[in-house]
Amino acid sequence: MDFNAVYHEARQNYCYPLNENELIINIKTGYDVRSVNIVAGDPFAAGILGGGETWEGTAAPIIYTKRLKNQLWWTTTVTPEFKRLKYYFELITDAEEWLYFEDGFVSREQFSLEGRSRQCFTYPWMNESDVNRTPSWVNSTVWYQIFPDRFCNGDSSLDPEGVLPWGGRNEEVKDHSVFYGGDLPGIISKLDYLQELGITGIYLTPVNEAPSNHKYDTSDYERIDPRFGDESTMKRLVAEAHERGIRVMLDGVFNHCGRYFAPWRDVLEKGPESKYYDWFMIKKWPLSKDGTAAKKGELYTFAFYDNMPKLNTNNKEVRDYFTNVVCGWVEKYGVDGIRLDVANEISHRFCKELRERVKAVKPEVYILGEIWHNAFPWLCGDEFDAVMNYPLGESIKDFWIDKSLTNEDFEYTVNRCYTMYMQQTNDVLFNLLDSHDTKRLRSCVKSLDEYFAQLAVLFAMPGSPCIYYGTEIAMDGGYDPDNRRCMPWDEIEAGAFNERIEIVRDLIALRKKEPLLSSRNFHFPNEFAGHPRVIQFRKVDNEKQYLEIIINAGDEDVDILPKGEILLQRHFIDNSLLVNGLIIRKVGF
Amino acid sequence: MDFNAVYHEARQNYCYPLNENELIINIKTGYDVRSVNIVAGDPFAAGILGGGETWEGTAAPIIYTKRLKNQLWWTTTVTPEFKRLKYYFELITDAEEWLYFEDGFVSREQFSLEGRSRQCFTYPWMNESDVNRTPSWVNSTVWYQIFPDRFCNGDSSLDPEGVLPWGGRNEEVKDHSVFYGGDLPGIISKLDYLQELGITGIYLTPVNEAPSNHKYDTSDYERIDPRFGDESTMKRLVAEAHERGIRVMLDGVFNHCGRYFAPWRDVLEKGPESKYYDWFMIKKWPLSKDGTAAKKGELYTFAFYDNMPKLNTNNKEVRDYFTNVVCGWVEKYGVDGIRLDVANEISHRFCKELRERVKAVKPEVYILGEIWHNAFPWLCGDEFDAVMNYPLGESIKDFWIDKSLTNEDFEYTVNRCYTMYMQQTNDVLFNLLDSHDTKRLRSCVKSLDEYFAQLAVLFAMPGSPCIYYGTEIAMDGGYDPDNRRCMPWDEIEAGAFNERIEIVRDLIALRKKEPLLSSRNFHFPNEFAGHPRVIQFRKVDNEKQYLEIIINAGDEDVDILPKGEILLQRHFIDNSLLVNGLIIRKVGF
Repeated sequence: MDFNAVYHEARQNYCYPLNENELIINIKTGYDVRSVNIVAGDPFAAGILGGGETWEGTAAPIIYTKRLKNQLWWTTTVTPEFKRLKYYFELITDAEEWLYFEDGFVSREQFSLEGRSRQCFTYPWMNESDVNRTPSWVNSTVWYQIFPDRFCNGDSSLDPEGVLPWGGRNEEVKDHSVFYGGDLPGIISKLDYLQELGITGIYLTPVNEAPSNHKYDTSDYERIDPRFGDESTMKRLVAEAHERGIRVMLDGVFNHCGRYFAPWRDVLEKGPESKYYDWFMIKKWPLSKDGTAAKKGELYTFAFYDNMPKLNTNNKEVRDYFTNVVCGWVEKYGVDGIRLDVANEISHRFCKELRERVKAVKPEVYILGEIWHNAFPWLCGDEFDAVMNYPLGESIKDFWIDKSLTNEDFEYTVNRCYTMYMQQTNDVLFNLLDSHDTKRLRSCVKSLDEYFAQLAVLFAMPGSPCIYYGTEIAMDGGYDPDNRRCMPWDEIEAGAFNERIEIVRDLIALRKKEPLLSSRNFHFPNEFAGHPRVIQFRKVDNEKQYLEIIINAGDEDVDILPKGEILLQRHFIDNSLLVNGLIIRKVGF
Repeated sequence: MDFNAVYHEARQNYCYPLNENELIINIKTGYDVRSVNIVAGDPFAAGILGGGETWEGTAAPIIYTKRLKNQLWWTTTVTPEFKRLKYYFELITDAEEWLYFEDGFVSREQFSLEGRSRQCFTYPWMNESDVNRTPSWVNSTVWYQIFPDRFCNGDSSLDPEGVLPWGGRNEEVKDHSVFYGGDLPGIISKLDYLQELGITGIYLTPVNEAPSNHKYDTSDYERIDPRFGDESTMKRLVAEAHERGIRVMLDGVFNHCGRYFAPWRDVLEKGPESKYYDWFMIKKWPLSKDGTAAKKGELYTFAFYDNMPKLNTNNKEVRDYFTNVVCGWVEKYGVDGIRLDVANEISHRFCKELRERVKAVKPEVYILGEIWHNAFPWLCGDEFDAVMNYPLGESIKDFWIDKSLTNEDFEYTVNRCYTMYMQQTNDVLFNLLDSHDTKRLRSCVKSLDEYFAQLAVLFAMPGSPCIYYGTEIAMDGGYDPDNRRCMPWDEIEAGAFNERIEIVRDLIALRKKEPLLSSRNFHFPNEFAGHPRVIQFRKVDNEKQYLEIIINAGDEDVDILPKGEILLQRHFIDNSLLVNGLIIRKVGF
């Protein structure tokens, strides 16, 4: 047996309560393992084992698997009668059988040896206060990310001085102090447009007062940037969005502040005498004034920007201050979600306190962390509900970038993304292909076929999809600032992008009409083994029907067996030949 | 390459801050991997990567390894200049080289592909409030576990009614309501004895009022059981222990209470009208009165004992109550440690709040959980400092029980125990070979040679060793209640066990004299490959010297190359032949 391929631990994504009653158990093995049984039972079924009693579990086969690169992922759900479970596994290959315990592999012979220890796996008790609960509304939400300065100028009286004419291209402008005049009234004026598109959630990059156009350098966490509007505009935006069935998520920048944040100004003025000195991470005073303080290690900052000093969330005062800020946003504006910027650098302690406090104010608030890597430590149920799912986005894009990747590679990489976290996290992952922090998707692909193929994958994945403003018109754009162009409303209203918008609207509508698209369970039937560039997967939730997604990312047309009802297609000719397009169809069993 | 053997995650025991400056990084590979480099650097060394900049780390070899069954464990310590680290690994076998990222293995060719994602591992920020800190005094402590009713009767006026004559054998008495009259004054009277033995910490099983002799069925958490003494006796015990350099740890039973706990009595009387109804986990009311309520699922209890109802630590009132109880013990009595009974079934939420509160009262208090399986979820730094290290104890005992196990198996299993947790946890693990919950070690072994060999291993391991009362006289005893015999003071004082006591005293003295015995770092030189039943390992902390432990657990004598200074030996003949004994020696480089 391939011992090294076997992995389980009675924790993390391998063993966790889905709710108060169900325990999900996953185990990885090599492909040589033909069947896996879980031998499980109540830990006290034979007494408290203080007298040498022999505990015995009941064997049950594990049926469901996902294929990972080199490994099989077996998954099952157990409902322990008394909320506690003790278990081990029987692993069976063609030639061997091994028992797998916490301390390793045991043969049947060793198992029977008198006095030998049996270090079973244990999930000792499913305490309700430890269950990871995520907001129920997120899975059915379709998000739209807005970069306010570039989305729509709704009130020119708010325009900053020196505002540039709308629509100017700004590839060459690296300076984040150029403004185009987008604002909250502009967003409000486009809520009907968004509603028609099918959007049910908007995520706004920061709107608090800040000197830059991106506003990730907050000056005042309690004030809406006057170039965007004010508190009443914000309240109106949320109210009007809610009227249209659209939820609103704000961006909280608590890893660092901007140069004009009052406590930081106080520190710059008074130095170690400032009562805010320990709100930051200052290692040496006075600081160099030529922008090299961070590089020299005098001050910890975001990246190496001296003007973005890190907030010391190890300090209780700082944690309380920003927890109050977020509670204020939720209470005052009525927002539904908070996205935390550079969430991985903030102390876990802050994240835990923040969740505790904000969920007390609004239990169904969505707490989303900006974390680009595996974020399990923040997704245990006591910090964030989800993270921005860049790993999934990268995996999808890589398939089109690296033509040597096969549909099996695609299967492995997508399965990896959905075996990393708990199911309740998967349900609410914030799936995206691009953002203000990446090149635009359109600029990563060679054709609109590739573009819409990737969007179709995004919309068929568990979690909740987010499109970056302009995605519906296939706006292109390179790295910052080119990914933050002005939304071309004149052209849109003139109908220049109607076909593209229609395709995106159809995708969104389908996502909302067919709950299977957003559901957890999917598998890869591997019917196109001979066509390595054809992706095929099915979303299944019950035994009556499934949705099938087939995408041809290769150069050769492929024959598709006609089946079921076609819900969406591109370049599917004569109901039989898939050119460089895709189909989504519903098939009954 | 054996891909499946490779494992790393940027969290848990694979990547964690040892303190505010040092990050420990571990990675598992197969034995085919000849060398591992970590390629690491500051995540922002090339900017914020918003413009397609190319981040590059610096490669450094990882030198230290531990052998696990089928896998090598590589370990290194990194000091990130700016408290954040981004990294991947280069894995090199005789024939291949692969780059290992969070999303898998990448060839050099793929690595150079334009636009392809690079999902590096990231430890985003070493926040001081998230560092796992354990009490510094525990590693050098030698513990002695006392079961008060059986240790010493110091004040016969406290004796319970119907007390049995001291020393009666009680193999047949399964009823936990027989008493022998041991008490706190008895323990106080033996503090000199314990000090002379070298003990520096005593762990008392529960002393709060409870009907049984073991007192794991607490009636009153704020009252010392009157058959043991009272509050002033407890204070005196702690004060007199402290005078002798002995710390005191109490046992807290917060998973369940006993039948006479006032809130439970209130519930039994008033049912759902009781204000304490939700302090317990009652699923159906009224409860069956024939002792079957737990079995029927009407009430959750410890195991299936209706008279030990589980405390609902999901309820904030309950958490506050017991947190106050523990703070009270620490403040009133001045105790140094708390052992939590059935700690794995209590909610994590309670454990976190408890730590926060108790450490605020006494930062260096030792919080120890009774958990028999892998307890990582409780050892992340915000719950317990350590757990009772049963896995290590089982591993040691198994080697003597299963004669088919080789010294390599021993190496693998011990290395497993010390790669499960963080180093700061390893330092303070509560190592034991037996307790009131197991057969006594003496009853698990065939000879005193085996007995002392296992104790010698225990005393050479990282963590802090605990011996169960009577270990020093090699007291035997089967399962409960036979493992709780009365301490035979008359015989001890008559000198009946002097030789045994001397050996244990020597072991303890050596542990205290040679800090290397308690230190973290050890390795197995494998010089006895031809003698699979000879254990050999070295404790190393610097480059000047090491301690070497060699134990012959086989039937054949082995030749030992004379070397260094012998610190302790049993059956080491003519400084060359190790019979069925052991040597501990100090060797300079």
